[in-house]
Amino acid sequence: MHRGGKIEIRSTVPVRDAGDLSLAYTPGVARVCTAIAETPALASDYTWVSRVVAVVSDGTAVLGLGDIGPAAAMPVMEGKALLFKEFGGVDAVPICLDCTDVDDLVETVARLAPSFGGINLEDISAPRCFEVESRLRDLLDIPVFHDDQHGTAIVVLAALKNAARLTGRALGDLRAVVAGAGASGVAVTRILLEAGIGDIAVADSKGLLYAGRDGLNPVKEALARDTNRAGHTGSTEEALAGADVFIGLSGSTVTERAIASMAAGSIVFALSNPTPEVHPDVAARHAAVVATGRSDFPNQINNVLAFPGVFRGALDVRAATITENMKVAAAEALAGVVGDDVTATYVIPSPFDERVAPAVTAAVAAQARADGVARL
Amino acid sequence: MHRGGKIEIRSTVPVRDAGDLSLAYTPGVARVCTAIAETPALASDYTWVSRVVAVVSDGTAVLGLGDIGPAAAMPVMEGKALLFKEFGGVDAVPICLDCTDVDDLVETVARLAPSFGGINLEDISAPRCFEVESRLRDLLDIPVFHDDQHGTAIVVLAALKNAARLTGRALGDLRAVVAGAGASGVAVTRILLEAGIGDIAVADSKGLLYAGRDGLNPVKEALARDTNRAGHTGSTEEALAGADVFIGLSGSTVTERAIASMAAGSIVFALSNPTPEVHPDVAARHAAVVATGRSDFPNQINNVLAFPGVFRGALDVRAATITENMKVAAAEALAGVVGDDVTATYVIPSPFDERVAPAVTAAVAAQARADGVARL
Repeated sequence: MHRGGKIEIRSTVPVRDAGDLSLAYTPGVARVCTAIAETPALASDYTWVSRVVAVVSDGTAVLGLGDIGPAAAMPVMEGKALLFKEFGGVDAVPICLDCTDVDDLVETVARLAPSFGGINLEDISAPRCFEVESRLRDLLDIPVFHDDQHGTAIVVLAALKNAARLTGRALGDLRAVVAGAGASGVAVTRILLEAGIGDIAVADSKGLLYAGRDGLNPVKEALARDTNRAGHTGSTEEALAGADVFIGLSGSTVTERAIASMAAGSIVFALSNPTPEVHPDVAARHAAVVATGRSDFPNQINNVLAFPGVFRGALDVRAATITENMKVAAAEALAGVVGDDVTATYVIPSPFDERVAPAVTAAVAAQARADGVARL
Repeated sequence: MHRGGKIEIRSTVPVRDAGDLSLAYTPGVARVCTAIAETPALASDYTWVSRVVAVVSDGTAVLGLGDIGPAAAMPVMEGKALLFKEFGGVDAVPICLDCTDVDDLVETVARLAPSFGGINLEDISAPRCFEVESRLRDLLDIPVFHDDQHGTAIVVLAALKNAARLTGRALGDLRAVVAGAGASGVAVTRILLEAGIGDIAVADSKGLLYAGRDGLNPVKEALARDTNRAGHTGSTEEALAGADVFIGLSGSTVTERAIASMAAGSIVFALSNPTPEVHPDVAARHAAVVATGRSDFPNQINNVLAFPGVFRGALDVRAATITENMKVAAAEALAGVVGDDVTATYVIPSPFDERVAPAVTAAVAAQARADGVARL
């Protein structure tokens, strides 16, 4: 399947004779260039820029493989470009960069930006990924979206909304524990706070984040301030006692005993791939709803449910950015596809449900207009 | 024709169900990444990298329009990508960079390099283009080719070979005058010297280059040393008296009187677009062979005759670079397509002659092998 690559460039206009050639290229193309030089916004109408996304990685945090470098990261970025096209009709170009310094990454992507209508950051290790994204969002007037963070966050929020609804609780009534304070752990926590979760405690490999814990980087420090109202200072498993929700984004493991200690009607999202933090069959002995990142169990939390529609919607209205509201709107649209069909094994739709991308696209585009960031 | 852009990304593998998805993306893609991390050369087999070219510009010397910036340059780079695909079956991605400093351009392209099998530099102003190309050729182990230089040079050499043959002379017997010492003027002069032209004088906007002329940049200084054996110090028109060949790459004009002063059986390539240095009908009153850059006159010198086959041939054998020999081989193959059918109005084939790209491809690939730069 991967031999020779998974994508190609195709022409969308014919070049059959000298007339076509002189229109598509010199001398005819000069008129288009002159028009754009005079009115820069016309670049969106007369080039592919407004519909093409760069999938950018430095290869430092590729899947569960870690820092394998830009060349070895390419199959993933190319796969992402494939999924952009197949699921969202979004043209995407994989770009693997041979630099890892934050300044270098920001500078390089900023220099590339005139060629693209959006930037999907991918598989850049934490905590560098937070600064890279944040600085690029400030610098550029096109959507910049770190999918490992926000794609995951959108799909988790969607699934959690449906799981809460199924088990008869409001988000504000839930106490959650997130294992993992990397890209996805941080973004999931942020979107759940945004959506009004009751309380949430986050753990990294050294245990729970709490205000005043030594040696926290600035991102974790901020997270510690905004979470863990109960002030737990121990391990994930200690915090799980009586908790309503577990979200594993860590690659670590959680014992059956800890899962059993959660509140009645608990919700367990064991999302590490390929090995969930707790086997879903084990979790199901105690939890009301179980989700994983795997396609061979029910309730697969898969980013492909979000990023194609998010970018399709943002590009369609030429959004200058992707706001927090747009992410929440995407999650609500995704949850809405399940709607009243929700069951314990169906809190999130299948990636192959053809309603998904159109629903997310429409919600994101509408929210971009409502937030005043749409330019079309 | 340009509305919405001229190219798109297409999938080459199906994603119809969860099985396809898990092979094309996670978890299946991890095996491919791991293999490449262990054996970097496998990137050529299992990604699109080895067949995709970046068409890179900073928008400083776009067509005859000059420094119009990266956004306004995009229609040309996208057009180039279109022609790469249509004429050579080469996947090409247009990249317009928001930087113009030589160090910045070199650094940025070097960082992008893991994503591409070749770099086509385009419409970067002289003399910066020479240093950018030269440094990237040293840094990278993939073909780097500034088409404004070498594409033009290849096609001019091909046409001149046929024109010389038609008029019964060897290249070594010809004295040529090149008007223009920008990207194409320099490269045309270099390839003609390489091919053994008798003598050649080059003029920039201030007149002929000669050893010791004040204020020459290093590129022109080197050119002055290697050309103008007669030591002319005046204008293009003075040097044309008795010359065999005129090649205009300057955007300037040449009088009919100067053309009339050339040797009998003269060859006039007035290549500026859209206005040739001398009108081809005027030139034809005095010259044996006339060529232009325009499609509405005979003998169109068009880079599309060269670059698709040059890159196709280089990529097909995974050439580490494009050698001078490979450029000369491309020119010979191009001249050979005309072969014994050569006439005064047919010294170079049409871009739509389907023999062109295969002939150039085969010659370039064979020469890469002969030069020891092929890796396949």
